[in-house]
Amino acid sequence: MADLSTCRPLTRDSVKEAHELIRPYIHQTPVLTNTTLNTIASTPLSSPGAAKPVIRLYFKCENLQLIGAFKVRGAFHAVERLKQDPTWSREKGVVTHSSGNHAQALALAARSNNIKAYVVMPSISAPPKVSATEGYGATVIHSGSTSVEREAVTQDVINSTGARLVPPYDHPDIILGQGTMGLELQDQFSQLRSQLSSSSSSPNPSPKNLNAILTPCGGGGMLSGVALSCEGTPTKVFGAEPSFEGADDCTRSYYSPDGVRIESVKSLTIADGLRTPVGEHPWQIIYERRLVSGMYSVTEDQIKSALKLVYERMKLVVEPSAVVGLAVVLYNEQFRKMVEQEGGADGWDIGIVFSGGNIDLSKLGELFSPATDEQTVITA
Amino acid sequence: MADLSTCRPLTRDSVKEAHELIRPYIHQTPVLTNTTLNTIASTPLSSPGAAKPVIRLYFKCENLQLIGAFKVRGAFHAVERLKQDPTWSREKGVVTHSSGNHAQALALAARSNNIKAYVVMPSISAPPKVSATEGYGATVIHSGSTSVEREAVTQDVINSTGARLVPPYDHPDIILGQGTMGLELQDQFSQLRSQLSSSSSSPNPSPKNLNAILTPCGGGGMLSGVALSCEGTPTKVFGAEPSFEGADDCTRSYYSPDGVRIESVKSLTIADGLRTPVGEHPWQIIYERRLVSGMYSVTEDQIKSALKLVYERMKLVVEPSAVVGLAVVLYNEQFRKMVEQEGGADGWDIGIVFSGGNIDLSKLGELFSPATDEQTVITA
Repeated sequence: MADLSTCRPLTRDSVKEAHELIRPYIHQTPVLTNTTLNTIASTPLSSPGAAKPVIRLYFKCENLQLIGAFKVRGAFHAVERLKQDPTWSREKGVVTHSSGNHAQALALAARSNNIKAYVVMPSISAPPKVSATEGYGATVIHSGSTSVEREAVTQDVINSTGARLVPPYDHPDIILGQGTMGLELQDQFSQLRSQLSSSSSSPNPSPKNLNAILTPCGGGGMLSGVALSCEGTPTKVFGAEPSFEGADDCTRSYYSPDGVRIESVKSLTIADGLRTPVGEHPWQIIYERRLVSGMYSVTEDQIKSALKLVYERMKLVVEPSAVVGLAVVLYNEQFRKMVEQEGGADGWDIGIVFSGGNIDLSKLGELFSPATDEQTVITA
Repeated sequence: MADLSTCRPLTRDSVKEAHELIRPYIHQTPVLTNTTLNTIASTPLSSPGAAKPVIRLYFKCENLQLIGAFKVRGAFHAVERLKQDPTWSREKGVVTHSSGNHAQALALAARSNNIKAYVVMPSISAPPKVSATEGYGATVIHSGSTSVEREAVTQDVINSTGARLVPPYDHPDIILGQGTMGLELQDQFSQLRSQLSSSSSSPNPSPKNLNAILTPCGGGGMLSGVALSCEGTPTKVFGAEPSFEGADDCTRSYYSPDGVRIESVKSLTIADGLRTPVGEHPWQIIYERRLVSGMYSVTEDQIKSALKLVYERMKLVVEPSAVVGLAVVLYNEQFRKMVEQEGGADGWDIGIVFSGGNIDLSKLGELFSPATDEQTVITA
């Protein structure tokens, strides 16, 4: 990883630079709209006194990104910056300890640049995850399950190969890379709006900026990157988390009296990409610099309901972590009241990031079993 | 339904007319590509002497169409033609007997035109199907389960209301409506090719026409409509069917010595949209006029394998019927040998129609259970 002292400043312009660097490698994922979901989002919940927001949604489909998740943006950017680092050379390679999307993203970014990639995974990792990472050309090295054991093995790899560590979220290069999706979403929204206003006779064309973007928040790399991509624009950025077993660490820290970052989380939320606590660099952007305007959380049932709507109505395969932003819009009454108040009769245009689509298909039946199906969604 | 004697002739120009009529109501669904699926399709199967075709795929995503299936094209076209019929008026309404996508399509087409729709369904129909059809504003009328009972109830509706019958596939107006997806696919392919050739330095840019389009074949409305949309162009059209329990009726008829259409099918293939025998009007286009260049069939396991690839690699929700064309391209050795011979080193650009995405989500777990997962795909 590039040394922190040589990193670009954490600004919107640096996100633009990152975009120029990674654009040849990644997909500009599509932005989709869905009339039915707009109607559902604009219908008051059944509770008495429920908010009546007017909502138009724009879905940034990072589930259609390379490797099925946004993580390639940060990984490709980290590798591009490393290539500019005179204290490192390609033969040395890169290393990370991860068993999720970041491992595959780094493996792909390395292979695309003829760079060796080492991925340290607990030896109990599911075989499909190991083979997927190997499928992208990485060398998988097994370790014990604790973070101490993984870090020890990672350090061994670094010592013996000179490989540079590329962490999954807590680094400026990763944050700037993930932020590139925010630039694309803003541009794509403007294009969509101008197409619509030229083809319709609507008396009240919406403004040319999104009112808000919601992204999921695990380690916070994506949320903070997207927040940077909107700095100085009229677009507000909000974060979404699962509340199950305390996975809403960033929400709780954000609204705590002392603003101290919670550094440890142990949750088995179905939104498995969001079980990590928010990192230090993201937290500075999210909280210290106040570039995120609010944090909201949702229950497991609300996540399942949103997931079902995306499969049924949008015909898209997404992972549970990907829909927490949509779940906030649909079911978090606090968020909906805010949109009602600030958006008024014109309402809000809201960008929603679908962060990824990597899900164990054999578990879809459980997620959508009739029992789940009929559960009542309780609003926050 | 418009009287047969007043229907437009079954030609490519009539498909263009149909497209002009329905364009304001339907989505122009996207055409997606996928590098991984191109690689898999261009990799020989493991059997000795396997074909080595070079294949580039273009997926027409009718699963992203209104109501989640292509059926709205035919339904909207039928309604547009009815509106021009002086012997019918809107108050009389339309009627069909169907429990599938056609019922919802007709309900939506009727509602969009302030026309009353009656749908006759067996009283044992699954409640979600009934409520989905009612959700689009149709009046559902229950009948017994046999076709004689359903037709009797339908005739009662016609006698008491003056509603006109809109059948699901065996009518020129339906065929012409479904064919509109073929026009869009041809146009979208040309646009994609010109974008690619302007941005790449490929020494061998592909020709500007698709070499082939594959569509699923149940009643044959879509297959014959798409065949009409390609008449007089260099693009060949092929049909795909499940072979399970004789659901490949059109394939068997097509290659029978006497060319007699099989009129009855009893199959419980997982491709539940394709359990119907091919209709009389479609058959004339497919076989008598030779506008379909070949028919191919695939096994249940091949359909499941293709389905899994689409969920995993394309992150799209499709129904089993939707992927039989892809299954032919990936697993039918006869088709693959033909592409190898005719396409040579340049290979073929093949359009694949994903016909719909309406699937019972609670059954996805079964479809993707590990047992299925590990089954060997046997080539035809």
